[in-house]
Amino acid sequence: MALLVVGSLALDSVETPFDKVEEALGGSATYISLAASYFAGPVYLVGTVGEDFPQRYVDLLSEHNIDLEGLKVEPGKTFRWGGKYHYDLNVRDTLFTELNVFEKFDPVIPDKFRKAQFVCLGNIDPVLQIKVLDQMENPLFVVCDTMNYWIEGRKDELLKLLKRVNVLIINDSEARLLAEEPNLIKAARMIREMGPEFLIIKKGEHGALLFSAETVFSAPAYPMESIFDPTGAGDTFAGGFIGYLHKTQDLSPENMKCAVVYGSAMASFCVEKFSVGALEKLSYLRVQDRFREFQKLSRFDEKD
Amino acid sequence: MALLVVGSLALDSVETPFDKVEEALGGSATYISLAASYFAGPVYLVGTVGEDFPQRYVDLLSEHNIDLEGLKVEPGKTFRWGGKYHYDLNVRDTLFTELNVFEKFDPVIPDKFRKAQFVCLGNIDPVLQIKVLDQMENPLFVVCDTMNYWIEGRKDELLKLLKRVNVLIINDSEARLLAEEPNLIKAARMIREMGPEFLIIKKGEHGALLFSAETVFSAPAYPMESIFDPTGAGDTFAGGFIGYLHKTQDLSPENMKCAVVYGSAMASFCVEKFSVGALEKLSYLRVQDRFREFQKLSRFDEKD
Repeated sequence: MALLVVGSLALDSVETPFDKVEEALGGSATYISLAASYFAGPVYLVGTVGEDFPQRYVDLLSEHNIDLEGLKVEPGKTFRWGGKYHYDLNVRDTLFTELNVFEKFDPVIPDKFRKAQFVCLGNIDPVLQIKVLDQMENPLFVVCDTMNYWIEGRKDELLKLLKRVNVLIINDSEARLLAEEPNLIKAARMIREMGPEFLIIKKGEHGALLFSAETVFSAPAYPMESIFDPTGAGDTFAGGFIGYLHKTQDLSPENMKCAVVYGSAMASFCVEKFSVGALEKLSYLRVQDRFREFQKLSRFDEKD
Repeated sequence: MALLVVGSLALDSVETPFDKVEEALGGSATYISLAASYFAGPVYLVGTVGEDFPQRYVDLLSEHNIDLEGLKVEPGKTFRWGGKYHYDLNVRDTLFTELNVFEKFDPVIPDKFRKAQFVCLGNIDPVLQIKVLDQMENPLFVVCDTMNYWIEGRKDELLKLLKRVNVLIINDSEARLLAEEPNLIKAARMIREMGPEFLIIKKGEHGALLFSAETVFSAPAYPMESIFDPTGAGDTFAGGFIGYLHKTQDLSPENMKCAVVYGSAMASFCVEKFSVGALEKLSYLRVQDRFREFQKLSRFDEKD
């Protein structure tokens, strides 16, 4: 079994109160596939870059056993994004968005990739996310991400997509917007009625919630005295989540909880450095250690 | 061993988007002692009310085995508070505060009460909280609450108090204000350096964090589709927390985690009805059931 990841690849220029970086490797497909690569292979990546995309970034992805047969190099420039985080890292300004070759992204899934049974649809136009699913032979498990922009501008297509995915991963403000309901627990029930069997709501420094037919699971956040750069944390979460499920091949609600914690663990590494700096050189042992730290953080038992 | 609770007793008029109530039983000492009464007795209450304080409220407290020897009835009117919650129940306006007899509250601890080894100092002037401690013979375990008003207006006295308490319970905005630090994990470390061995930060719908020398514990919030009235939830949390420790007489960090969850469980009942409506008629069995629900909510185990 293989895992297909579709999304953006970008060159990110990021400024935080601590430091800044220019044209670093970014994009949803990048973070998702790098995070997933620590669990089980093969990871198939589908995306597009311009002719200016640095070879060292291609090498970095290849070294993580990410199959780049679906990475299309188009004439023109790579997608660029610039953002500036405030002292409160929950607030950021987008300084510029240059879509470049990403504007015409039309995902074509190579034959070999069409057999992948695990699919992670990064945050792109729901029309394209549907197009990806239409090309798959027999997807067993589909996870998708989206954002305010598509909830507001592509609601109908998004609702069509939601009937075809197993898990939707969004943050709390996106959940409230999608359900048009301020109470998160009520919003979660309403969103699950739109299609996805499982819903994950990410709450940043407050952890994440997993909703299924019978249970709610509350995953803690990793306590961090400083966050260096939050860019990509959400995508990294998704990559860790589906990577762990792909590795264990166990889609039970109990195992899904562990996957949420592995996603949170990967995201906690991601924010320690700029770009993919912290995701480049991890080991599965370190990931497991952090998983156990999450366990210690949230476990309580009454004496008999 | 006994538990002493000192704080306010009030008549609350509360309006929510759903309903309203007038001159209902309220006040920090009320919520704390009622919540604690479900764990172990005796609970000693010290507070003040006016001559207009309804006998039925006195009876209600007595029926929960709360010893009212320290309840002083002064000439004049009882403390009254009026508040209005918005559709987002995290936002409330104070409509009026009439301190009345509470303005001159000067806690005198009856002789019998001075031997209590567990002490819960509700949110009152730190000067008075210190005065209470000065009257105790040999307090083993002191928990205290405070608020923005005292952090801003009585910082020096509060800092003196903090050197004499074992646990400080505050919410996230109070923690940021007290430490003058936006990062909650950093703020927690700084506040523990001010004195308290344990610090609990309540985060409302996001649960609570317990900090000690070696560990951080993250307690989930109970998932609620609707909150009827949040008034008193924080005090109820404190009452459940210290009530459980008083019952188990086990002050280890591991048992402290369970106490945080019992506090959260009690608070989750509190917000289901106006005033003490939900706290009046609980049973310890129901409290234990909810504790187990918290366990299900946050537990995850990897298959071997």
